Amino acid sequence: MEFSSKLIEKAVNEMSQLPGIGKRTALRLVLHLLKQPKEQTGFLSQALLNMREDIKFCENCHNISDTKVCEICANSVRNHQTICVVEDIRDVMAIENTGQYKGIYHVLGGKISPIEGVGPSQLNISSLVEKVKSGKVVEIIFALSSTMEGDTTNFYIYKQIAESEIIISTIARGISVGDELEYADEITLGRSILHRVPFEKTFKNN
Amino acid sequence: MEFSSKLIEKAVNEMSQLPGIGKRTALRLVLHLLKQPKEQTGFLSQALLNMREDIKFCENCHNISDTKVCEICANSVRNHQTICVVEDIRDVMAIENTGQYKGIYHVLGGKISPIEGVGPSQLNISSLVEKVKSGKVVEIIFALSSTMEGDTTNFYIYKQIAESEIIISTIARGISVGDELEYADEITLGRSILHRVPFEKTFKNN
Repeated sequence: MEFSSKLIEKAVNEMSQLPGIGKRTALRLVLHLLKQPKEQTGFLSQALLNMREDIKFCENCHNISDTKVCEICANSVRNHQTICVVEDIRDVMAIENTGQYKGIYHVLGGKISPIEGVGPSQLNISSLVEKVKSGKVVEIIFALSSTMEGDTTNFYIYKQIAESEIIISTIARGISVGDELEYADEITLGRSILHRVPFEKTFKNN
Repeated sequence: MEFSSKLIEKAVNEMSQLPGIGKRTALRLVLHLLKQPKEQTGFLSQALLNMREDIKFCENCHNISDTKVCEICANSVRNHQTICVVEDIRDVMAIENTGQYKGIYHVLGGKISPIEGVGPSQLNISSLVEKVKSGKVVEIIFALSSTMEGDTTNFYIYKQIAESEIIISTIARGISVGDELEYADEITLGRSILHRVPFEKTFKNN
């Protein structure tokens, strides 16, 4: 792509570094900004800069937060003895949206993935193990996505905390609510049969 | 969507103002920036700001340019008597890529579109009419996309310059090179029959 303007070229090049945004899309976005008032570009740049400079991570659960300890960890009503292990802030948001979880979280910041060069030392695993060893934790819930990397990470952590006398659970895998059985893949359907739950549980409150 | 951080929320809100980028995509992009070195966010913000602040438009053809007169208009080898009328810089880039055009351009900056509230006065039409009336132009080539808005814009300009003694042409519509006839729509196929060209022209150079 040849540009008639170095300024446009530079903006497009920087924009197309973002995942899923190619040169063409980047050019479309940049031209859109050109048509909008100057302030919009100013607001966007400033918001990104502020976010990148001032962002903090909760020193307890490592979630993204504006304060030293995030709102969830600072909430004394929540059950601090149950820790849900997730990959990143998006998973926290997804679980919070269900309104079904009253414990706290531990954000790993990724999954063990040799292909992408992510090893255990780059993730917030040691602080989780320490928490468990401190004896204040009653249950750990693994809520990583059910991929090769997720399972590897689960197992890596499990090996380090298996000797502690705590409950270690993982979120249930099974047929989505509202799904037809015939379209489910075999592994999911198989798991949902193996891990069947007492029928009474499905209509009684816990 | 509820965010645990106002900084993230603001960045996501600004990002999702861009066309085709929803809140979820914006969050993905913002989290990507968080994982990259701080410099990348700095470069991106700076490139966008510089682009928006310092961008110039060629005073002759209104194309985006870093200088007062763009490279194409400043090039004395090009034929300044032939003007190709296009919508924006993307069309200039597309035509330049063909390597088939040696004239200069006139960038309208959009198409007449009552639905989007774009009238003739918001486009660079009057300066085009002036150029034609100055008598230095021999041919005008309309190269707007073949939509209702494009045709309206073509016709609006045509009405104002029809009395000048210049050649007014429009780019050929027809079956794409490499396309099968049976899959072409009727209107395009019809046009390509009506506007058939002497066979000799297709293998002789001009």
